[in-house]
Amino acid sequence: MGLKSFIEVHPDSHFPIQNLPFGIFKPEPASDPRPGVAIGDHVLDLAAISSAGLFDGPVLKSSDCFIQPNLNKFLGLGRPAWKEARATIQKLLSSTEPALRDNASLRQKALVPMDKVEMLVPIAIGDYTDFFSSMHHAKNCGTIFRGPENPIPANWFHLPIAYHGRASSIVISGTDIVRPRGQGHPAGNSPPYFGPSQKLDFELEMAAVVGPGNELGKPIDVNEAADHIFGVVLMNDWSARDIQAWEYVPLGPFLGKSFGTTVSPWIVTLDALEPFVCDAPKQNPPPLPYLAETISKNYDISLEVRIKPAGEEHGHVVTKSNFKHLYWTLTQQLAHHTINGCNLRPGDLLGTGTISGPEPESYGCLLELTWNGQNQLSLGGTNRKFLEDGDEVIFTGCSKGNGYNVGFGTCSGKILPSPL
Amino acid sequence: MGLKSFIEVHPDSHFPIQNLPFGIFKPEPASDPRPGVAIGDHVLDLAAISSAGLFDGPVLKSSDCFIQPNLNKFLGLGRPAWKEARATIQKLLSSTEPALRDNASLRQKALVPMDKVEMLVPIAIGDYTDFFSSMHHAKNCGTIFRGPENPIPANWFHLPIAYHGRASSIVISGTDIVRPRGQGHPAGNSPPYFGPSQKLDFELEMAAVVGPGNELGKPIDVNEAADHIFGVVLMNDWSARDIQAWEYVPLGPFLGKSFGTTVSPWIVTLDALEPFVCDAPKQNPPPLPYLAETISKNYDISLEVRIKPAGEEHGHVVTKSNFKHLYWTLTQQLAHHTINGCNLRPGDLLGTGTISGPEPESYGCLLELTWNGQNQLSLGGTNRKFLEDGDEVIFTGCSKGNGYNVGFGTCSGKILPSPL
Repeated sequence: MGLKSFIEVHPDSHFPIQNLPFGIFKPEPASDPRPGVAIGDHVLDLAAISSAGLFDGPVLKSSDCFIQPNLNKFLGLGRPAWKEARATIQKLLSSTEPALRDNASLRQKALVPMDKVEMLVPIAIGDYTDFFSSMHHAKNCGTIFRGPENPIPANWFHLPIAYHGRASSIVISGTDIVRPRGQGHPAGNSPPYFGPSQKLDFELEMAAVVGPGNELGKPIDVNEAADHIFGVVLMNDWSARDIQAWEYVPLGPFLGKSFGTTVSPWIVTLDALEPFVCDAPKQNPPPLPYLAETISKNYDISLEVRIKPAGEEHGHVVTKSNFKHLYWTLTQQLAHHTINGCNLRPGDLLGTGTISGPEPESYGCLLELTWNGQNQLSLGGTNRKFLEDGDEVIFTGCSKGNGYNVGFGTCSGKILPSPL
Repeated sequence: MGLKSFIEVHPDSHFPIQNLPFGIFKPEPASDPRPGVAIGDHVLDLAAISSAGLFDGPVLKSSDCFIQPNLNKFLGLGRPAWKEARATIQKLLSSTEPALRDNASLRQKALVPMDKVEMLVPIAIGDYTDFFSSMHHAKNCGTIFRGPENPIPANWFHLPIAYHGRASSIVISGTDIVRPRGQGHPAGNSPPYFGPSQKLDFELEMAAVVGPGNELGKPIDVNEAADHIFGVVLMNDWSARDIQAWEYVPLGPFLGKSFGTTVSPWIVTLDALEPFVCDAPKQNPPPLPYLAETISKNYDISLEVRIKPAGEEHGHVVTKSNFKHLYWTLTQQLAHHTINGCNLRPGDLLGTGTISGPEPESYGCLLELTWNGQNQLSLGGTNRKFLEDGDEVIFTGCSKGNGYNVGFGTCSGKILPSPL
């Protein structure tokens, strides 16, 4: 603990001075979007801090990376810039530093109540990739779709399987999601169903935000991969299971996913997550040399999903999982992504895939929780097999420190009915 | 014919006044990238024409869409702008119009010899999608990988199957392609192969360039889809068959494709292709209502692939195909892409998938031409199962009019060895 801000931060807050996640916000509806950092119930306006000349370290002193509508330029600067920014902000916000604390006009300009701001997708996402890194999820999906013999494909233990996702339909937490229409798997030889998806699902994921990229043809070494990852967000990879099941052979998921993907507004940095590092699962068979890491890190991040039916006040917790259940690490995912020479760019998003734990109460999507609609999930007075119109799905993620949290806030979205 | 330019255009040229494809070029290495139109052996600099005030129609008069480093802004303006630009440029270049013909200093500035310019990827590609729309290709791949019974998946005749591709690694014709490394399918129960791909392939494709997009949640009607397509390019979807075969279950192709995709520099507009419209194949079963078009158009575009081994002068034609072999039309592809509410943006790229014809000489990739390496393909004095280092692959595409061509130029790339 020790470190304390002059700004009052409730002990339950996700955003104490130990966290300092980055986002993009508009202080007022007509303002330009700008970078900010969450502190308690406030957002620190980095454009204002930058304009006041308070980023005075060697890397950021003459940079305009905080006078930008997204974080891509800052991400591209790499770890030296990230470390310097964190140190500067942590110092400015600390209870013992007068520069901001005792400057009423700067405080007035640079500290905006969080409930007054509009948050935006913090990065311009050039490419979005989604992995499939939870063994429990892979096993459950395989069992549901292909039966209990060999539910996990032979390749799964050798490489972090992934597919390219749709970047255009990534939206910020709070954006409504329109129930997609499409073709669903026909019964037997009948023609395919067409209409609003009948199996609309969430997927509990997190996603890494890429910092500096690599040149086409030049892979990134797995032991240097962490320097290419700025931080992590919560992500809901909304899925229409009936559309997905019909379309995905042989080229993978397409319209079953591309109607919307929700990200949380605050990118929690790997630096802030460092106290919550834990061992990654032992991998057997051992990974090929290009995936063998000197240090194999996971993070202990508790994850929770609530469903709030229309008209209800609070919602019901439907799963509790943890980031540490992932089999493949973020750094292995990133190294694998580039081993063929594929180039990453700052702001690229790498989803983990659904994070399911070993217990049924920790499964990361309704497909698993209701076993493809075979069972009902109780939400107090009502039940669900899949999502209904008006349902709001709310993710939270949080790491518990000694007297403080490093949290992600929420990642939420509400289902609107399909258009006629 | 009739229409003639004051610029001399060889009868074999792909770029007579009837074509007028759009690209992005740098007249000199230090110049800013800018839009241009191909005319014979020259490029017309649209920034220069725009600065000279010659785009004087109602839509383009006060637009800066040609003072841009890519075509996205112009694409977003839609068909009225495209029609007006084409009419203005066709008039300016015609033999009877003095405005450019008789203005030596403007000609000097605005007409650059094509062999002096550097061409760039003409669009900022937000998302790249690759379809699978040739029935012959689907049938051949299915037979090779799954056997001759039911080679085409049940869903294929009901929807234009597609997957999301990688936008970051799309490169302009002439860019070298580094042979990817990766995991290849193991034999039996042995561990997977790792190293340079041993089954490097080309895929003969074309790709539609999206104009105005749509809002998330608002599908585009199939009968209005043509207004969202600006034009078409040649595309080589380089594929590492051994990597692809091992990784693609269950989420589709990933690293087997994402190491590079080559596009031709000139976007030929649908307006220029209109004289080459032909009927699309009759679809049976009939498509669902959202894919049923009032008019179902294909285009008669002859396609040819040459392979030029290192040190050889000309290369050998290995296949001759035609765009008209596609089963699903461009407009069906686009409408399907949005039926779930997925949003398209100007500059998005929609690949057709490999365009194979019915005859073995018209197959669009080595996988089919050598039946997955079972047969050798003769290149005169040498043979190929898959591509070797130093091989250059050159696509051409051309529609033959009455006394003129509407062509695409070439789309080429040379294989460099994997890094050690």
